[in-house]
Amino acid sequence: MNHNQLLELLERHAGEFLSGEELSRRLSISRTAVWKQINKLREDGYEFEAVSRKGYRLLRVPDKLAVSEIQEKLTTVKFGREIKLLDTTETTQVEARMLAESGAQSGTLVIAEEQTGARGRQGRRWFSPARKGVWMSMVLRPSCPLSFAPQLTLLTAVAVCRAIRKVSDVEAGIKWPNDLLVAGRKICGILIESVGEDELIKYCIVGIGIDANLDESDVPDELKGIATSLKIESGLEIDRAALIGAVMNELEQLYEMYVTEGFAPIGHLWEALSVTLGRRIKVRTPQGEKSGLATALDPAGALTLMDDRGEMYTIFSGEVQLD
Amino acid sequence: MNHNQLLELLERHAGEFLSGEELSRRLSISRTAVWKQINKLREDGYEFEAVSRKGYRLLRVPDKLAVSEIQEKLTTVKFGREIKLLDTTETTQVEARMLAESGAQSGTLVIAEEQTGARGRQGRRWFSPARKGVWMSMVLRPSCPLSFAPQLTLLTAVAVCRAIRKVSDVEAGIKWPNDLLVAGRKICGILIESVGEDELIKYCIVGIGIDANLDESDVPDELKGIATSLKIESGLEIDRAALIGAVMNELEQLYEMYVTEGFAPIGHLWEALSVTLGRRIKVRTPQGEKSGLATALDPAGALTLMDDRGEMYTIFSGEVQLD
Repeated sequence: MNHNQLLELLERHAGEFLSGEELSRRLSISRTAVWKQINKLREDGYEFEAVSRKGYRLLRVPDKLAVSEIQEKLTTVKFGREIKLLDTTETTQVEARMLAESGAQSGTLVIAEEQTGARGRQGRRWFSPARKGVWMSMVLRPSCPLSFAPQLTLLTAVAVCRAIRKVSDVEAGIKWPNDLLVAGRKICGILIESVGEDELIKYCIVGIGIDANLDESDVPDELKGIATSLKIESGLEIDRAALIGAVMNELEQLYEMYVTEGFAPIGHLWEALSVTLGRRIKVRTPQGEKSGLATALDPAGALTLMDDRGEMYTIFSGEVQLD
Repeated sequence: MNHNQLLELLERHAGEFLSGEELSRRLSISRTAVWKQINKLREDGYEFEAVSRKGYRLLRVPDKLAVSEIQEKLTTVKFGREIKLLDTTETTQVEARMLAESGAQSGTLVIAEEQTGARGRQGRRWFSPARKGVWMSMVLRPSCPLSFAPQLTLLTAVAVCRAIRKVSDVEAGIKWPNDLLVAGRKICGILIESVGEDELIKYCIVGIGIDANLDESDVPDELKGIATSLKIESGLEIDRAALIGAVMNELEQLYEMYVTEGFAPIGHLWEALSVTLGRRIKVRTPQGEKSGLATALDPAGALTLMDDRGEMYTIFSGEVQLD
């Protein structure tokens, strides 16, 4: 017997109780086997009410992603038109990179319900529990110089921020270069891995992790006060398929704009969503710590900082802390 | 029996003939086995004179690289201090990339006597016959922004060009961005693969292929008139170990200069060795073909081109053809 027969039976009788005895008889399996399967389904996110003498009643089907459901939301030509949906994986970045190395086309998307070993910037662990977030990586093959890769990082932040605002009404803002925050707490991480040959980009892996439906109780202790989720902020369950679709739509639209008009319009959108500009910040750079006022985004996507003596610095990379 | 016993015997009697019968007796192997081993050694580049009734005489030991011999030439702290020397491999780029992924330190060098599937820019086949050239790839972990990767490409071209001039007196020049030419023919190819995370470089693989000791007869027909070698140009056999050492020394020295003083001094060295600047060129770019006068190298390492109407263009990437 597989899950599906038990599940079918319970779904057909949704709202009703079915006794363990009856389930056992109708499926020709032992009552212990029924109990084991119920527990397995609970691990997968199904919820049951179990009442003695009455049996089991299916209360809630988990929010599982389906490729068809995501693709219904797409208005894109290429982005998200090839989707590899995984139940669990170490990290979608590695999956996508393998696909890219074996020739996957630009726009190919890898999504996992759960990641067991995901990493953010600088190798930091990225918590990605099953069915609670959007954990995905897209193959991008831009025909542009490697020196433009940082602009793609900013472009992605703009796309995800706009998608979040459309789907959830949560007013996320961008911390330079590509963290999304809500009231100072992180709601999304973006990591772009680029592989280049000489001065050209061969491909990028655009990694996006959005804390969509985590409850306060899902947030690990060490992240309390630091991380939040769209559900925590809005009080509403987010339709993850709609969110993924919206991210793909925004990303393709902005990318087309970037290819035809260059970085300027993307830079303006970034500035409008920024929570860094006009703020006093501290930045840890490879050359040491700097602090001052974040004044502008330069045309290459670097951050301009003015220190207390009025000297200007260009920050190409570093970790920003808002004062 | 292994090669070495037969080889030792022949080397000890260098200049003398040893008969197949004697070799067979002294090594306690059959005469067929002696003949097979001799053929195997010939494939490895050893040369023998075989005269009936007299036997075999060792004429020439192949120019095989040895790690110790290379390291004697080094004045570096890190570059080339870890060397993986392979007899044959598909491509040293992939070997070096695997080492980088498993944590190899900056300066780790992979050298192969022969490459069976090496590729240059845009996937073009790179001919790398056994013991005739310098086929190598170095792991570099620069702590600089990804947007600076094209500068490392130019830096590498300068380092190799200077090393070639030191070791061989061949006046190689640089065609933008990183081909080395002698009288219009290619003598060295450089390919830098960069892997970045957001705006930072994680690591680079600096691939260098120098046509050192190819004879005219080694150059495949389709490359005649296009490729040359240091030996063809100078008439002299090049000490490959000395050349590898010189490349490592130049590379580390220029890299240190780059880290402390920025790109400006490297740019000046590049300009001094360039065969592109001041010439009429055609460039195939992803945006189409442009032609005009190559006027300058910009601070980011891009090429400035002035077309016939006096309009200036910045070329970030493309294939240059000298008019």
